[in-house]
Amino acid sequence: MQEIVRVVVDAMGGDNAPDEQIKGAIQAVNSRDDIEIIFTGRQEVITSQLEKYTYPQERVKIIHADEVIETGESPVEAIRKKKNSSIVTGEMLVKNGEADAFVSSGSTGAVLAGGQLLVGRMKGVQRPPLAPLIPTENGVALLIDCGANVDARPSHLVQFAQMGSVYMERVVGIKNPRVGIVNIGAEEEKGNVLVKETYPLLKECKNINFIGNVEARDIPAGVCDVVVCEAFVGNVILKLYEGVGATMIKKIKAGLMSSLRSRIGALLIKPALKETVKTFDATQYGGAPMLGLKGLVVKAHGSAKSTEIQNAVIQCVEYKQQHINEIMGSIFNVSPEK
Amino acid sequence: MQEIVRVVVDAMGGDNAPDEQIKGAIQAVNSRDDIEIIFTGRQEVITSQLEKYTYPQERVKIIHADEVIETGESPVEAIRKKKNSSIVTGEMLVKNGEADAFVSSGSTGAVLAGGQLLVGRMKGVQRPPLAPLIPTENGVALLIDCGANVDARPSHLVQFAQMGSVYMERVVGIKNPRVGIVNIGAEEEKGNVLVKETYPLLKECKNINFIGNVEARDIPAGVCDVVVCEAFVGNVILKLYEGVGATMIKKIKAGLMSSLRSRIGALLIKPALKETVKTFDATQYGGAPMLGLKGLVVKAHGSAKSTEIQNAVIQCVEYKQQHINEIMGSIFNVSPEK
Repeated sequence: MQEIVRVVVDAMGGDNAPDEQIKGAIQAVNSRDDIEIIFTGRQEVITSQLEKYTYPQERVKIIHADEVIETGESPVEAIRKKKNSSIVTGEMLVKNGEADAFVSSGSTGAVLAGGQLLVGRMKGVQRPPLAPLIPTENGVALLIDCGANVDARPSHLVQFAQMGSVYMERVVGIKNPRVGIVNIGAEEEKGNVLVKETYPLLKECKNINFIGNVEARDIPAGVCDVVVCEAFVGNVILKLYEGVGATMIKKIKAGLMSSLRSRIGALLIKPALKETVKTFDATQYGGAPMLGLKGLVVKAHGSAKSTEIQNAVIQCVEYKQQHINEIMGSIFNVSPEK
Repeated sequence: MQEIVRVVVDAMGGDNAPDEQIKGAIQAVNSRDDIEIIFTGRQEVITSQLEKYTYPQERVKIIHADEVIETGESPVEAIRKKKNSSIVTGEMLVKNGEADAFVSSGSTGAVLAGGQLLVGRMKGVQRPPLAPLIPTENGVALLIDCGANVDARPSHLVQFAQMGSVYMERVVGIKNPRVGIVNIGAEEEKGNVLVKETYPLLKECKNINFIGNVEARDIPAGVCDVVVCEAFVGNVILKLYEGVGATMIKKIKAGLMSSLRSRIGALLIKPALKETVKTFDATQYGGAPMLGLKGLVVKAHGSAKSTEIQNAVIQCVEYKQQHINEIMGSIFNVSPEK
């Protein structure tokens, strides 16, 4: 029998909370037998939402948490003060081993700060990266790191490459994933101090498939599976992906309205265009995992709908069942902690 | 009478050289009375190309240069060794005051290295940035710096903001251009060490219209006119713009071929789509100026066609006639040198 994976879902965080969070989690628990859902948040709100659905009652629990951390709050302060918030309550469950993973669409800062301060880093991990999947021409790539801690050191980037490789191979199912480091040219001697110092370390690293420098231009074309960069650069890449995509779609739509001929054409291509735009939509991929913690923390988009939450929960199950933390633990030469 | 601006055009650099370079320069000289073109490159090649066109002979010259710097060569070494190359010859003409500006589609590294080593920085300028125009929802923004020198200091970024403002106001015609610094959040306290140290300096800077942090997501929407960043980040932004755009277009085209209905629709929207893609095409804007030099150096795309070269030449004329270097000189508290 498959081991049951216990996933905490923050019912209060996100623009569409609690509706989409609860709907998504219920979709996940109904789709597989090996998931247990623990909702954190206001009991009465969650209970009243749950009445809408049919689901295996023995695999869905609620742990009441009265407070909600707002996006505007200082993350570290909020984590420290709002001990009875849905985020702190959820992350403490993971820390204490009462759950395996935590999914939230709430304040990114608070979720990440709590990941570090409450759940805690795995032994041997210097810095836990946030690693969303981004769409490429033929699939997805893992962008690692997009987190809150900028000004990384070379040794951090080497760990990102290792963690990202394990994740892509085991959770996403890409065999021998190609690892590239973001640089301003393809040649080995190019780059800033950080990249120049990191390059030889990656080249020597035996447990990754390092293919060298990648230019930002080639990331969407899918030249590598694990895109290693420092968090400031990762944040720029992630957000520009969204920004350029959104602006292009807007311009194309406006362009299609410019003549009668193109307006008729637009009607005919609408379904195909919608499908294409969807494959380039990061929210399909179930949120961004924060790697290198003692349990898994997944940050879903603030605007997440039920599909993203469902995929995030299933990602947690794969993560646990594929023993990702045990594998990472063995890479960093320590026995994995619970 | 308008002053005549002397623009050197590298006839040898670029994927489409010499055809498109010569065609574009001739289009420019035929469009206005205040341009003089000086071609550098192999005399016999240029002469034979010129036979195709009608143009004012007194305003078109050739200066023979036997060598060509290839893109693969080490830029600094190539600049030092190939003294008789079209790039070195052209930049030396600017240095010696025999021309006002230099346009090249050749090796970016060599053009930039020559800009610094041959043409030379204006007095008071710490680092000359490369500043391409990038398309936005409603127009263009200046991305400054995308050059070869990474790991900038805060004082460099302040000068980039000042130079960029002058350029956008005087050459592109945006009144009181909004200056933003690329950051990973909108709040003042966010960012890496460089941005945190630069922010207060920009805030205090009196001759710019500083609007604060901008997130990469908002750049394509056009939230600011001058996008200030360090060259590594600028390079990532510039290239990801191209990459995401190209991949989306590819995916949309493939999506349109997916059914008979959408294939018919695709035929109808083709002209409108083409027009839209064109407005998001950076090559429309006549190459990237390298600012803060004693004369203007413009780097056009390696794949530049005649329109880009024509626009690049006209940009040089505006630059000179708007006295950009004199204005920048007065900002940096020194008298501008020729």
